[in-house]
Amino acid sequence: MKFTLALGAILATTAAAFAPATVAPRAVAVSTTAVNSFSSDIFEVRSVDMAGTTEQIVKGGRDLFPKLPKAFEGIKEIGVIGWGSQAPAQAQNLRDSLDEAGCDIKVRIGLREGSSSFEEAREVGFSEDADTLGEMYDIIGKSDLVMLLISDAAQAALYKEVFAAMKPGATLGLSHGFLLGYLESIGEGFPEDMDVIAVCPKGMGPSVRRLYEQGKEVNGAGINASFAVHQDKSGKATDLALGWGVALGSPFMFETTLTSEYCSDIYGERGILLGAVHGIVESLYRRYQRQGMSPEQAFIESCESITGNIVKIISTKGIKAVYDGLNDDDKKIFEEAYSASYMPAKEILQEIYDEVSSGNEIRTVIMHGKRIDKFPVGKIDGTDTWQVGEKVRESRDEENIPLNPFTAGVYVATMMAQIDVLLEAGHPYSEVVNESVIEAVDSLCPYMHYRGVAFMVDNCSFTAKTGSRKWAPRFDYILDQLAYTAVDNGKPVDEDIISAFQNHRVHAAVTACCELRPSVDISVGSASSTKEIVIE
Amino acid sequence: MKFTLALGAILATTAAAFAPATVAPRAVAVSTTAVNSFSSDIFEVRSVDMAGTTEQIVKGGRDLFPKLPKAFEGIKEIGVIGWGSQAPAQAQNLRDSLDEAGCDIKVRIGLREGSSSFEEAREVGFSEDADTLGEMYDIIGKSDLVMLLISDAAQAALYKEVFAAMKPGATLGLSHGFLLGYLESIGEGFPEDMDVIAVCPKGMGPSVRRLYEQGKEVNGAGINASFAVHQDKSGKATDLALGWGVALGSPFMFETTLTSEYCSDIYGERGILLGAVHGIVESLYRRYQRQGMSPEQAFIESCESITGNIVKIISTKGIKAVYDGLNDDDKKIFEEAYSASYMPAKEILQEIYDEVSSGNEIRTVIMHGKRIDKFPVGKIDGTDTWQVGEKVRESRDEENIPLNPFTAGVYVATMMAQIDVLLEAGHPYSEVVNESVIEAVDSLCPYMHYRGVAFMVDNCSFTAKTGSRKWAPRFDYILDQLAYTAVDNGKPVDEDIISAFQNHRVHAAVTACCELRPSVDISVGSASSTKEIVIE
Repeated sequence: MKFTLALGAILATTAAAFAPATVAPRAVAVSTTAVNSFSSDIFEVRSVDMAGTTEQIVKGGRDLFPKLPKAFEGIKEIGVIGWGSQAPAQAQNLRDSLDEAGCDIKVRIGLREGSSSFEEAREVGFSEDADTLGEMYDIIGKSDLVMLLISDAAQAALYKEVFAAMKPGATLGLSHGFLLGYLESIGEGFPEDMDVIAVCPKGMGPSVRRLYEQGKEVNGAGINASFAVHQDKSGKATDLALGWGVALGSPFMFETTLTSEYCSDIYGERGILLGAVHGIVESLYRRYQRQGMSPEQAFIESCESITGNIVKIISTKGIKAVYDGLNDDDKKIFEEAYSASYMPAKEILQEIYDEVSSGNEIRTVIMHGKRIDKFPVGKIDGTDTWQVGEKVRESRDEENIPLNPFTAGVYVATMMAQIDVLLEAGHPYSEVVNESVIEAVDSLCPYMHYRGVAFMVDNCSFTAKTGSRKWAPRFDYILDQLAYTAVDNGKPVDEDIISAFQNHRVHAAVTACCELRPSVDISVGSASSTKEIVIE
Repeated sequence: MKFTLALGAILATTAAAFAPATVAPRAVAVSTTAVNSFSSDIFEVRSVDMAGTTEQIVKGGRDLFPKLPKAFEGIKEIGVIGWGSQAPAQAQNLRDSLDEAGCDIKVRIGLREGSSSFEEAREVGFSEDADTLGEMYDIIGKSDLVMLLISDAAQAALYKEVFAAMKPGATLGLSHGFLLGYLESIGEGFPEDMDVIAVCPKGMGPSVRRLYEQGKEVNGAGINASFAVHQDKSGKATDLALGWGVALGSPFMFETTLTSEYCSDIYGERGILLGAVHGIVESLYRRYQRQGMSPEQAFIESCESITGNIVKIISTKGIKAVYDGLNDDDKKIFEEAYSASYMPAKEILQEIYDEVSSGNEIRTVIMHGKRIDKFPVGKIDGTDTWQVGEKVRESRDEENIPLNPFTAGVYVATMMAQIDVLLEAGHPYSEVVNESVIEAVDSLCPYMHYRGVAFMVDNCSFTAKTGSRKWAPRFDYILDQLAYTAVDNGKPVDEDIISAFQNHRVHAAVTACCELRPSVDISVGSASSTKEIVIE
């Protein structure tokens, strides 16, 4: 079996979300800062209308490679540290792009002494003989740009040694805001005398590499990236970050901050991307059975309806199209479910946002990591819900999965509540849409559709999968306790909530984001175990 | 309807657990310190064997009142700040005891300007005319001992002003460790130049007063208390704390630390006292229905079995008696459930302990308080489970509530896991037994038995009831995902886990604690709303 992800997969799949063996990124801090104020002497900064607000982007493309020598001015040696999801892709793309641009820059891989990844790095052309592969602290000490792409947990454990090993004037490069979150959560920060930048591809590593290769033929292919300039002692940090993005093959780059990036990422995966959708399915599956459905039908009307119908509409036509496509009776059911679910879902989402932005959630992740030998991450799909789901998938009629309007109301209300919490916290639309809509419908739900909740959740980073386990039951309980009881007790629909949904500016932003998507499909499938997601 | 709490209620009901309008106590910090090293020149310190370990206690009693002038030496004015659950009781008891002891000490009440509690304070004999009632900062400024008995949230909001208003050399008195936890969670501490002590009655305020009055007739009546000496600049702090406990009418006092006190308290209420038992019931209620029971029978075999049978055995005969009383077939079922549930329950309990002791949980409570205007604490018992429960209670046959051995295995395993996490963290047995056993079976479960989960949870402090809401679904999910699936998949019983249960030293400690209990029953009942718990 094979399924094709819609266009947005390219923009969507975050490295944080998929990094099997390696633990991925982000965590904790204060509040997000307004961005959209950058300029570049090298790359053209364009203004894009995003639901009535203007956001600045830089378009990428292979035609910009000649600008790379200027963007990387002063950088002679790049050390890519780690070999998880992002490092192999980014190291190869950088090497190839800088070569093509005629830059005399050495890209090296740095790994833990004795790491089993040495062999994999050699297989793609890095080697000790060519002085492009070595022990991580050696490589760090030699590099003008240290791209620290090791796992969240490793970053938290090793940051002191990494900083100490860097040479004066070198730039620290990240692909997630996690390390800042961690440092803030323990009352520390980056050394003040270095540039700190991040380029965060909005897709997992393998797709960053695969689409870069396709990009050689198909103009515009690649994974978009957000970028952040956290410390700019040299005055050159913005151009270096943009050059990095261009060298990765990103079709466009939008600005964020490290804080905004990790807050929205860690928050989003606990919400509608993983945790919320899990809890929604469990609560609806029970509800529909209490109303008399068989377990199989209850699974179809809850989980299948989301992954096999609702998200496909959102992916191709936007969020509001789910509602607009319903008949009048179903619109009423949708409205009842939406109206009753919006505030309860928002209560948990606001709690998640507060936990993430306060630093609590990252401390939780770190503490969880320390307990993992004693309490390994357990199986979540051995329960009745997902056992029934497996049977349902076996006899699935893909073309006739129903759109349950109650399910749609609950799911869409939760997605909209997630969007509103982010917008109220000041996140830019490009980030909000990515972390609340595109990644959910194009990247993650297809995994749940393919093989159930564990295939989606457990292919994600440690930070993501443990966060999903933590928050899913909270959504389940609050919907059952506050939303479904309100509907059952005949609480009138709150017209303001419905009207706010219908007239929400995010609908235009989703459209704008879709128009910025590159035109190459990426297909994921034939995976025979959760460790073998194949990008074809 | 009326029910009588068993003996242990006196030792058990914590003020933290019951404080309707007022928010109660504790939160966050590091690790607990070994105690049991205090001495007193005034009161006799006795050694008690507690499961093979020796713990020190001081017995109270009205016969010790003549020692109060010496214990309170240097204290001329006491300010009791607040009028929640504890303050009315402690202020009256102190005033009456110090009067009887012939001490020339003024006990005053300090309240917020314009507080509606002024009238209540006047009704029990405090007044502006007698200079025993006034604005809180005025009273604080006059007092040699400031008993800060305002809510958790108020302590967190006002601590700076309170410290600033205290006169040099005055002692700060607390009845919970919450404030220390809060200060540690924000990287602050108490001013170094003051004594800081705590006396923490192990019962809600009304019972502290009611049993003190009974104690005039019945020797030994009263609410036991733990005490902590956190800062002792004067060298007199221990005797003052013990004197305070004696004046409150405590039959005996055991030593703790502020950290140990708030960690065990906040942890316990999130665990088996409130959160865990809620999650256990929900998960079993579903399981039994999946196995073919009617909703009513499923409720009887889960919730009723715990509140109407299992906890009564534990209260009167100890934890192991639940198992010992089963026939051989039921013992096997108990063992399967216990063996499968112990580690999953412990995983969540260890997470709770880490969250509390790291400071995370108290930050969560404070942040939750700030969201409360937008997201009020919602109703938890409108769901199917508790609606069915209401029906079941209407036709309850109190004498014939079944002891479901599977339910017993899950419940007892969770209780034992809670005990083990506390013991591994170094808490003394007296605290462990109180926060994991006595308070659960004698104080809280009877409330759930009487009127369902909300009557138990929502009569507790804000800290407790929001914590219970947070953690209940985690126990539910993990038991469903890891424990019940293990049983259903025929995973063999882990004999080590069963043997550890059977030979656990806590069984002797529970017996020892029972022997220290005073011999006065306390009855709770006739409550017509959750706000009217009547102590008769």
